[in-house]
Amino acid sequence: MTRDSVRVYAPATVANVACGFDVLGFALYEPGDEVILRKNHTGKIEIILITGDEGKLSRDATKNTAGVVVDSFLKHLGLRIGISIELHKKMPLGSGLGSSAASAVAALFAINELMGQPLTRMELLPFAVEAERVACGTAHADNVAPALLGGFTLVRSYDPLDVVKLPVPSELFATVVHPHIEIRTEDARSILRKSVPLKDAIAQWGNVGGLVAGLLMADYALISRSLHDQIVEPMRSLLIPNFAQVKKAAMEAGALGCSISGSGPSMFALSTSLHTGQNIAHAMKQAFAAVNIQTDCYISPINTEGPRLLD
Amino acid sequence: MTRDSVRVYAPATVANVACGFDVLGFALYEPGDEVILRKNHTGKIEIILITGDEGKLSRDATKNTAGVVVDSFLKHLGLRIGISIELHKKMPLGSGLGSSAASAVAALFAINELMGQPLTRMELLPFAVEAERVACGTAHADNVAPALLGGFTLVRSYDPLDVVKLPVPSELFATVVHPHIEIRTEDARSILRKSVPLKDAIAQWGNVGGLVAGLLMADYALISRSLHDQIVEPMRSLLIPNFAQVKKAAMEAGALGCSISGSGPSMFALSTSLHTGQNIAHAMKQAFAAVNIQTDCYISPINTEGPRLLD
Repeated sequence: MTRDSVRVYAPATVANVACGFDVLGFALYEPGDEVILRKNHTGKIEIILITGDEGKLSRDATKNTAGVVVDSFLKHLGLRIGISIELHKKMPLGSGLGSSAASAVAALFAINELMGQPLTRMELLPFAVEAERVACGTAHADNVAPALLGGFTLVRSYDPLDVVKLPVPSELFATVVHPHIEIRTEDARSILRKSVPLKDAIAQWGNVGGLVAGLLMADYALISRSLHDQIVEPMRSLLIPNFAQVKKAAMEAGALGCSISGSGPSMFALSTSLHTGQNIAHAMKQAFAAVNIQTDCYISPINTEGPRLLD
Repeated sequence: MTRDSVRVYAPATVANVACGFDVLGFALYEPGDEVILRKNHTGKIEIILITGDEGKLSRDATKNTAGVVVDSFLKHLGLRIGISIELHKKMPLGSGLGSSAASAVAALFAINELMGQPLTRMELLPFAVEAERVACGTAHADNVAPALLGGFTLVRSYDPLDVVKLPVPSELFATVVHPHIEIRTEDARSILRKSVPLKDAIAQWGNVGGLVAGLLMADYALISRSLHDQIVEPMRSLLIPNFAQVKKAAMEAGALGCSISGSGPSMFALSTSLHTGQNIAHAMKQAFAAVNIQTDCYISPINTEGPRLLD
């Protein structure tokens, strides 16, 4: 069966997950992005419509992450075909929830479907990582990996790229709170030190090992004890007003752990039920409201599916 | 049933395991240490005999790790009783195989047996960690944890002490080669940098996560890909003659990975069969022999049992 068009949804993601800076991430059910790809007769890759971005994203297909992945996918397979792209942003930009990754993964999954699935998801991954270079300047995989593969992912290595999908205990719920403030990714990057004390690095790899073991053994207490970040959170939290109080509120409402999502400003918390997840969302929202910051909240189990066809 | 004496064997251990500096370790079946504890009527803790140490260890029970753990255990429980200790070293000192940890764990396990098992193994752990401070100057847990708990262990945190015993795939074999050279622990420590580049730290926690996931998923290819150390091995390998060739020989003989055991000079390699483990031992021995260094070799599955009663 060949088709002329395809509509795909790809999810937002939480990268870093406290201790796993640049290596851990997981996918949410919502928010996310939607793309529609159609074969066209111009022979060109064109972005014909973007909604939900307030005009911030480039309509030039060579500069937009969705256009970039479609182009590199087709070139890789030696296919010459025109593609029209509609991108419907259904999530905030610059929120620390993997907005560019969601767009890239949606477009990549869509073009692979449109061409009859010539590549596996794991084979698609390098195209999405490369597209992140266009969006962020560096080839990060900690958002695109969970967005594409679903679930909880570990970037074991960047060179060569080696990503592992980790089993996720079924009762794990994520609460994500997006405060309406802006952090530039450059600022979030530049605030980090280029080297870390060996002592802190040891504590961090103890926690990464603990979190991975906790996920695989469905040991929620271990997951909770491992959700600490001594290296990145102390710096980046300075960019989020009332961070300590928001985190405290989440923990008091029953969170297993709470930290910054990606480079922020969104924050995430993990818990073991929808009800607790909702209580956590309420508590975090209140703590941001106390300093006059509005928020959007999302609560969902870990999305083990990744992108999906919408028709 | 109360007894008047007890005889215990505790195993040698491999700490660090490539990527897990200060946090990962596993237990071997041999070599190891043997202790005999007997209640006495002097009311004192006395070391009455040490064999196999070439006179290097202190006979003063307040300075010997075996005496220290027995004393702190009895004080903790408020017990006033005299104990005579025989320590039979059946493994090389200063080899990077957790010699002091084996002695401490053997004595600790023995005194707990002698007193009717008032504490669990996990409750015994802090006494052994504290004894390492006497032996090494710092309270390391990466040898005592696997020696006491058996199997593969992760020190998730040192403060508070939090150790996780990881499931181990049954086909995993360890080859350990002890070259007859001396490295002082102080040198092995002082050669390390006090801070590490963030980039290397990220690579390291990717590998720790990969190794833990590989062990839990019994994914030998992932274990193999994760057995890399960008931080400690490049420095400490300078203290081991012909290191690169020995490692290469192990890998060519079928090792999943090969690195330094603890602070060295022993080296370990992992494989998936006894036969491969033997081939690796032969290859590593040859590579050390090429630079006129004699070796002892040990090959065994991961020891999931830890210390054991000998009578």
